[in-house]
Amino acid sequence: MIGVAVIGYGYWGPNLVRNFAEVPGVRLAAVCDLNKERLAPVKARYPSVAITDNYDEILSDPSISAVAIATPVSSHFKLAMAALMAGKHVFVEKPIASSAEEAERLVEEAARRGLVLAVDHTFVHTGAVRKMRELVDNGLGEMYYYDSVRVNLGLFQHDVSVIWDLAVHDLSIMDYVIQHKPVAVSATGISHVPGEPENIAYLTLFFETNLIAHIHVNWLAPVKVRRTLVGGSNKMIVYDDLEPSEKIKVYDKGITLNGDQKANGEKVYQALVGYRSGDMWAPHLDVKEALSTELREFAQCIEQSSTPIADGRAGLRVVRILEAATQSLAQRGRVIELEKIRRVA
Amino acid sequence: MIGVAVIGYGYWGPNLVRNFAEVPGVRLAAVCDLNKERLAPVKARYPSVAITDNYDEILSDPSISAVAIATPVSSHFKLAMAALMAGKHVFVEKPIASSAEEAERLVEEAARRGLVLAVDHTFVHTGAVRKMRELVDNGLGEMYYYDSVRVNLGLFQHDVSVIWDLAVHDLSIMDYVIQHKPVAVSATGISHVPGEPENIAYLTLFFETNLIAHIHVNWLAPVKVRRTLVGGSNKMIVYDDLEPSEKIKVYDKGITLNGDQKANGEKVYQALVGYRSGDMWAPHLDVKEALSTELREFAQCIEQSSTPIADGRAGLRVVRILEAATQSLAQRGRVIELEKIRRVA
Amino acid sequence: MIGVAVIGYGYWGPNLVRNFAEVPGVRLAAVCDLNKERLAPVKARYPSVAITDNYDEILSDPSISAVAIATPVSSHFKLAMAALMAGKHVFVEKPIASSAEEAERLVEEAARRGLVLAVDHTFVHTGAVRKMRELVDNGLGEMYYYDSVRVNLGLFQHDVSVIWDLAVHDLSIMDYVIQHKPVAVSATGISHVPGEPENIAYLTLFFETNLIAHIHVNWLAPVKVRRTLVGGSNKMIVYDDLEPSEKIKVYDKGITLNGDQKANGEKVYQALVGYRSGDMWAPHLDVKEALSTELREFAQCIEQSSTPIADGRAGLRVVRILEAATQSLAQRGRVIELEKIRRVA
Amino acid sequence: MIGVAVIGYGYWGPNLVRNFAEVPGVRLAAVCDLNKERLAPVKARYPSVAITDNYDEILSDPSISAVAIATPVSSHFKLAMAALMAGKHVFVEKPIASSAEEAERLVEEAARRGLVLAVDHTFVHTGAVRKMRELVDNGLGEMYYYDSVRVNLGLFQHDVSVIWDLAVHDLSIMDYVIQHKPVAVSATGISHVPGEPENIAYLTLFFETNLIAHIHVNWLAPVKVRRTLVGGSNKMIVYDDLEPSEKIKVYDKGITLNGDQKANGEKVYQALVGYRSGDMWAPHLDVKEALSTELREFAQCIEQSSTPIADGRAGLRVVRILEAATQSLAQRGRVIELEKIRRVA
Repeated sequence: MIGVAVIGYGYWGPNLVRNFAEVPGVRLAAVCDLNKERLAPVKARYPSVAITDNYDEILSDPSISAVAIATPVSSHFKLAMAALMAGKHVFVEKPIASSAEEAERLVEEAARRGLVLAVDHTFVHTGAVRKMRELVDNGLGEMYYYDSVRVNLGLFQHDVSVIWDLAVHDLSIMDYVIQHKPVAVSATGISHVPGEPENIAYLTLFFETNLIAHIHVNWLAPVKVRRTLVGGSNKMIVYDDLEPSEKIKVYDKGITLNGDQKANGEKVYQALVGYRSGDMWAPHLDVKEALSTELREFAQCIEQSSTPIADGRAGLRVVRILEAATQSLAQRGRVIELEKIRRVA
Repeated sequence: MIGVAVIGYGYWGPNLVRNFAEVPGVRLAAVCDLNKERLAPVKARYPSVAITDNYDEILSDPSISAVAIATPVSSHFKLAMAALMAGKHVFVEKPIASSAEEAERLVEEAARRGLVLAVDHTFVHTGAVRKMRELVDNGLGEMYYYDSVRVNLGLFQHDVSVIWDLAVHDLSIMDYVIQHKPVAVSATGISHVPGEPENIAYLTLFFETNLIAHIHVNWLAPVKVRRTLVGGSNKMIVYDDLEPSEKIKVYDKGITLNGDQKANGEKVYQALVGYRSGDMWAPHLDVKEALSTELREFAQCIEQSSTPIADGRAGLRVVRILEAATQSLAQRGRVIELEKIRRVA
Repeated sequence: MIGVAVIGYGYWGPNLVRNFAEVPGVRLAAVCDLNKERLAPVKARYPSVAITDNYDEILSDPSISAVAIATPVSSHFKLAMAALMAGKHVFVEKPIASSAEEAERLVEEAARRGLVLAVDHTFVHTGAVRKMRELVDNGLGEMYYYDSVRVNLGLFQHDVSVIWDLAVHDLSIMDYVIQHKPVAVSATGISHVPGEPENIAYLTLFFETNLIAHIHVNWLAPVKVRRTLVGGSNKMIVYDDLEPSEKIKVYDKGITLNGDQKANGEKVYQALVGYRSGDMWAPHLDVKEALSTELREFAQCIEQSSTPIADGRAGLRVVRILEAATQSLAQRGRVIELEKIRRVA
Repeated sequence: MIGVAVIGYGYWGPNLVRNFAEVPGVRLAAVCDLNKERLAPVKARYPSVAITDNYDEILSDPSISAVAIATPVSSHFKLAMAALMAGKHVFVEKPIASSAEEAERLVEEAARRGLVLAVDHTFVHTGAVRKMRELVDNGLGEMYYYDSVRVNLGLFQHDVSVIWDLAVHDLSIMDYVIQHKPVAVSATGISHVPGEPENIAYLTLFFETNLIAHIHVNWLAPVKVRRTLVGGSNKMIVYDDLEPSEKIKVYDKGITLNGDQKANGEKVYQALVGYRSGDMWAPHLDVKEALSTELREFAQCIEQSSTPIADGRAGLRVVRILEAATQSLAQRGRVIELEKIRRVA
């Protein structure tokens, strides 16, 4: 049995506790929160689970081999690094850390010690996103674009911009779905609350191939939208997370190019670009709770010394983009090369 | 009676002919097209209308006091300038010209001669867009953002990018709806057909006030979207042009700021930003054909020496943004100040 | 060449004229309307077509071998019967006649003379309805139900109830899509305009098999709905005619029955009924104009002495249901056996 | 403090327990279930609450003054009657009983003893339904129709038809929203599982005024629909319970009648019926949990000897319609007068 401790029992911690309690091979050993009063319901519901406000107790407990960190982002690095140095496997909420440098150091430390480092990119464990990946791998053809909109009213954050709060979802999904990795980013945005971070932002991601990605995030929209378009040379996908079912629709649509016929003048060009319009198809999706799937995978990676889908490197790739986007945002969209932010992964 | 000639009888010309034939105070005098065969149906339906493939005949006809130009963009400047120099009032398809310089010269010439110069920004004459303007003027509060998406599959143009083809609609609508004028633009995009202009583009427009605008245009999308979000400090609008009715929805939603309470720490901040969520309202819209309204306005401006809603200056402002966006696009989103492109208006 | 005359140039007649003018093998010979002034545009556009307000001229013209009747329903029988007796093939607007008896006499007369009698059930020539039929024939399994809603605001008719105006569409579509024919009908409804026919009605159709059909029609609805659900033992269809594309969606959903396991008690029952939920699929549809397809078929049937998809018998079956529903409506839903209304077909 | 016992801890009981525990003035005293094992989590979470499998203990406990019954319908009457006879106030799941006769006897017993008898018509405590009632009372004008569709795939019941399972919701909502009460019902339907009750049904309800109601319920639909249209002479409502917000839309649409101008012929008729089309409006709705509101109202009625919105008489009216509809269903829609089923209320 893998002894697991959950660190932080605020908004997300209870979900981790509830799910870890059901993972085969895992023993939920302890829950830790600085505010010990929050932990009373844990004791009531899980009498055998230890509760504490002292993180050191967790780190020094040899029966605990893994920690799951669900605290504010600013503390991720410190808590995760301490756990790794204590020889614990680590599962961290997204984003994995506050900067690419911090993320890199976690990745290096985990690698050096042969420990599992996972980041909670929950969406990559949903049926919808897994199906998207499957479609991208098989049948979408050459990747043309990835366009995502994630807007709603609230909840304004004080310490981070809308990019760190909302775009992190899109970036983690895209990191999983598309094999290609971006090389540069341009971001624009605005803050409507004096002295506070941006509440609207637009990111363009550039790739080495003929692919473009764009993410629109907004805390101040009158309607809620969660929609991603993925264009390939053979098929195109619409992923609408607000659809109760049919979240993924695959369109057998696109253009056909007849490269060899190219010549001068419009007529020939119009012959060059043709349009295909075929069936639409909404595959049935697995509806298992993503978090449950994810925690089982984490346990399995510990048992088998394997690498989780969303490992520390995935967490780092996402944070690197967030950091670059933040720099670009401050300069009205100046392109930031990700390489300048990269060190390790 | 104002004698009017329609120049160009391709895709849009027939709509101009059909509508001018019904405008009170206008006499549809002639239709001109280089391909005279196209004009046969005009003769059949409107026996009293002259048809010709010789533009000079139009220019030298003293009974014709206005021309409406519906030819390819590349010819707008030459045809419109010739008409102005011949003392004719001019109505031109959008975009008004191929460059800001051309547009400026048309604006100057029309001003010098006291002639009406109108550009066919058709949407600004729809009930939906007029209602948006009315709402922005009364009740929306301080303008926060303008976000528009105009995507579908096809029709790829050969000579111009998707910006000149699709974003021109959004820019002309925004120019009318919002009093503030942008000062700079950043545009990113991509072409998926080798050697051809961009078929996907994203524009961010910067303003001197705390306002941002963004336009997403795409010829290669699996679904058709025509949706604009307009955020104000008091209310927000969703304009969905594909809705059969209820194209405009007004949301009594937003944030409230209590600036004086600001202090350190998250708790105070969350008190600072509050969320309002009230009724939604879809005003009944005028459903008259926009083109008819527009041509009546053109006739009236000629009669009363007044300025059309979409005058040459509006056409110029839009072309200036298109030109700046095209420059930015070539430099992966580098900000282009519109002032550097401005000369006259 | 088949000489065709169009009778009635009101709302629908111009569509028949425009389409017949393009049908290969057809010569549009004449257009007849009691109000001769209406016919001026015909002469202008089709100089070779004769215009007349005298139906007898049409009937006595040996160069005319078919007539298409687009007059008010009350005149269908008289005009169609006269044409058949004059040896003309006949195409009639729906409903084919004002009563089952009239419809039967037309069917008999056409059969006796070996003439083509077609009814303008336009929808059965759309890509969507043809695809539904194809799906029902292949893959839907045993037919379970057919449920249709056709509601909107207006246009109230004075002489007939909403059943004759709107349900006639659903009945003609259902007659084509489903092989089974109903045996009885129960209809309820109401009129909200004193002294006028029902503006809301609900029809239930009973069959000999384990199938039920229901149609809801309403002239006084705040929203427009055109939606049909078709349930089969293997698959189910949603046909939404207001969808711009994807009008037909096929759901691989349903129940599974394990008949042999049946026993007492709820537990066994719940094991008995299982639920399947698979992919959804929206087949690409043919978008050719239905009326054009239909008129070509009419011409072909004349040439080849074959039977149109929507022949007089189809028209009769629909009118018989309309008549029975009208009787039922007057008796608050009393079941009317169609056999009591049936004589011929 | 009102001592309350919850009877039945299956699907719905836990919701009652969770909510009663929060109602001011209520002491959750006991939970009773025949299967005592189910009650373990109650003890864990609410240590002070008694648990028992012996209903008599509840009835004989003088500290318990009210019971909430969440058991299968077939047991409602027996349990509720025993509670009333023991002098307890009663809250029963819907439908209140298995027959109108049972419901009447409960109503009579509660009246005789001056006890509160409430039925759990949960929907009438939602913000959406309360708003509908408010609109019907103020501004909708004369009631024209009430049309409701409640369809989805599953969950087939073994002991009752789809009417008792799904239409009970619509009937309880309609009973609350519309002041008028139906006088007769016609129902049609079908079963697709041999030997089992109907899984599709259509109910028409007749009133003494010029109003009609219709309910479509279906366990075998490929899509989930929860949509009600309410037509009045001044305004019309669309209530879509699946909309995340904007569940209620009010349309300023309808017809206008000019009764005095009536004359012969169609032209005059068309002048008679005019169409109005104004704004649409989606009022902001209260989002408090309905069950919480409902249980607070129940407690208040006990304290103040007042009558709940959904009292025993409301429960009876609904059951009477269910019973009549069941009779009609067996006779292919024969009209059943509700008076023949009525005795008390």
